[in-house]
Amino acid sequence: MLLRALWMSLDPYMRGRMSDAKSYADPVPVGGVMTCASVCRVQESNLDGYAKGDLVMSFTAGWQDYSVSDGAMVFKLDPNMQNPSQALGVLGMPGFTGYMGLMDIGRPKKGETVVVAAATGPVGTVVGQVAKLQGCRVVGIAGGAEKCAYAVDELGFDACLDHKQNNLNDELAKACPDGIDVYFENVGGKVFDAVMPLLNAHARVPVCGLIAQYNATEAPSGPDRMPQLMRLLLSQRIRMQGFIIFDNYGPHFPEFLRVMTPWVAEGKVRVREDQVEGLENAPQAFMGLLEGKNFGKLVVKIADK
Amino acid sequence: MLLRALWMSLDPYMRGRMSDAKSYADPVPVGGVMTCASVCRVQESNLDGYAKGDLVMSFTAGWQDYSVSDGAMVFKLDPNMQNPSQALGVLGMPGFTGYMGLMDIGRPKKGETVVVAAATGPVGTVVGQVAKLQGCRVVGIAGGAEKCAYAVDELGFDACLDHKQNNLNDELAKACPDGIDVYFENVGGKVFDAVMPLLNAHARVPVCGLIAQYNATEAPSGPDRMPQLMRLLLSQRIRMQGFIIFDNYGPHFPEFLRVMTPWVAEGKVRVREDQVEGLENAPQAFMGLLEGKNFGKLVVKIADK
Repeated sequence: MLLRALWMSLDPYMRGRMSDAKSYADPVPVGGVMTCASVCRVQESNLDGYAKGDLVMSFTAGWQDYSVSDGAMVFKLDPNMQNPSQALGVLGMPGFTGYMGLMDIGRPKKGETVVVAAATGPVGTVVGQVAKLQGCRVVGIAGGAEKCAYAVDELGFDACLDHKQNNLNDELAKACPDGIDVYFENVGGKVFDAVMPLLNAHARVPVCGLIAQYNATEAPSGPDRMPQLMRLLLSQRIRMQGFIIFDNYGPHFPEFLRVMTPWVAEGKVRVREDQVEGLENAPQAFMGLLEGKNFGKLVVKIADK
Repeated sequence: MLLRALWMSLDPYMRGRMSDAKSYADPVPVGGVMTCASVCRVQESNLDGYAKGDLVMSFTAGWQDYSVSDGAMVFKLDPNMQNPSQALGVLGMPGFTGYMGLMDIGRPKKGETVVVAAATGPVGTVVGQVAKLQGCRVVGIAGGAEKCAYAVDELGFDACLDHKQNNLNDELAKACPDGIDVYFENVGGKVFDAVMPLLNAHARVPVCGLIAQYNATEAPSGPDRMPQLMRLLLSQRIRMQGFIIFDNYGPHFPEFLRVMTPWVAEGKVRVREDQVEGLENAPQAFMGLLEGKNFGKLVVKIADK
């Protein structure tokens, strides 16, 4: 079948596909088509089960206007879905990442303190709002006053700190008077530095992304803090666990949609999109994503229908 | 009651009690009595439930010949126990540490590869032999040819490497042709460096001790490998978790004894003790422990009965 891309998703993991460093997935070869998740409309179909006009999610369409698919890695979407681009965000991979990482590894308990960085991004918004629904104190970290105000005023976080401030360590300690029980790691770098001394005994640290270090070309200078991190894990009895959402939790996706879809419909989980127009603007938008220039889930609108 | 110490245990955790660095337990104050676990004989008793001649385990007797106890942190031992000092090793804290960390965090599956350092120490021997009982390939790391031969010939490990060799990285890769699924971390330092590149997807790393770095007075020089470790946890989807045995698993102790006691009696789990005579030799023996000079569980014999 021939697919017409309507929306494509831009996500930090793509940076790893542009590097040949050992990772969980092969890099995109030089000259290859860059990978992404897309919401597409079926234009023509010789495939059983798919007809012209169907709305689908494809993981193989790539950064392209059109693609030919044999049905592999393609999933039908509800044709009446009000905001199909949400299949790339809160109801897709990023939302699933935030939900499962928080619930299965983070295991938040009522009254605990949950900290999440990139608080207004598609993972962070889900982590924070779901943690609020579990009765936790939620402290976000984001870049800039506008994002922080949004996290508190619109998403209901208890506090949100601007990592562009110089006093992040002190501010985070003040915002977490009872320490940190769950730190959802999706950025790495200096946010984690501020989090480390505040981690409580038996804290949980799901690790789903390290965007702050994806562009690094060499290890930062010393001292070597790896032994310090291991000592912290030991003395505070911390569980730190990396996960790749579909690899770890693929079979849980339908269960996730059953929980999250009504939450989104009822406004219990609110979402914000940063929409860029035109495939030709995807590279610039992606570079901005790695610098935190987006505000909300970054999607590229490629065609109307 | 008045307790006469018969055996005292020397364990790496004691190094932490001699430092005021933030840890899970308070340090022993300067001039205080150094803490330890001891097997003691009741000499005189005004306490209900304890009579002269009883054999007990005490966590408060400290590095002393005699101590007075109000019964807190004291547990009765089977008066007919053949080797009471085993209550300090395979049937005590170290054995419990190896068993629970392996089974609950490591979760070894048949056919997987389990690596453990300090392979002939009281934790490592239990980790390795229990992993063999689960059907795993077990590779130990120990200091010196004699210890390595013992791990393979007496304990049944599939291989054991001498960390005093310069080619540990290469040797470990050869000994683990299918990578490493569980690394039981009880030493830290260069063994972990050799382990890192071999960790398989979804590997588990219980962390119970970091003896190699306990005497460090400053962080090692750079580069800073903390980001590299976090990236490894993410890309390989690794679970790394610190634990302090009685804090995490205290209520499981009776269950552990029910499993381990017959294994020891039947020879399925073999043990080796390194016995030092005389309380006055405890400090030197403890310094040797931190350098790996002991061969087997290090205990100090203080009195015969």
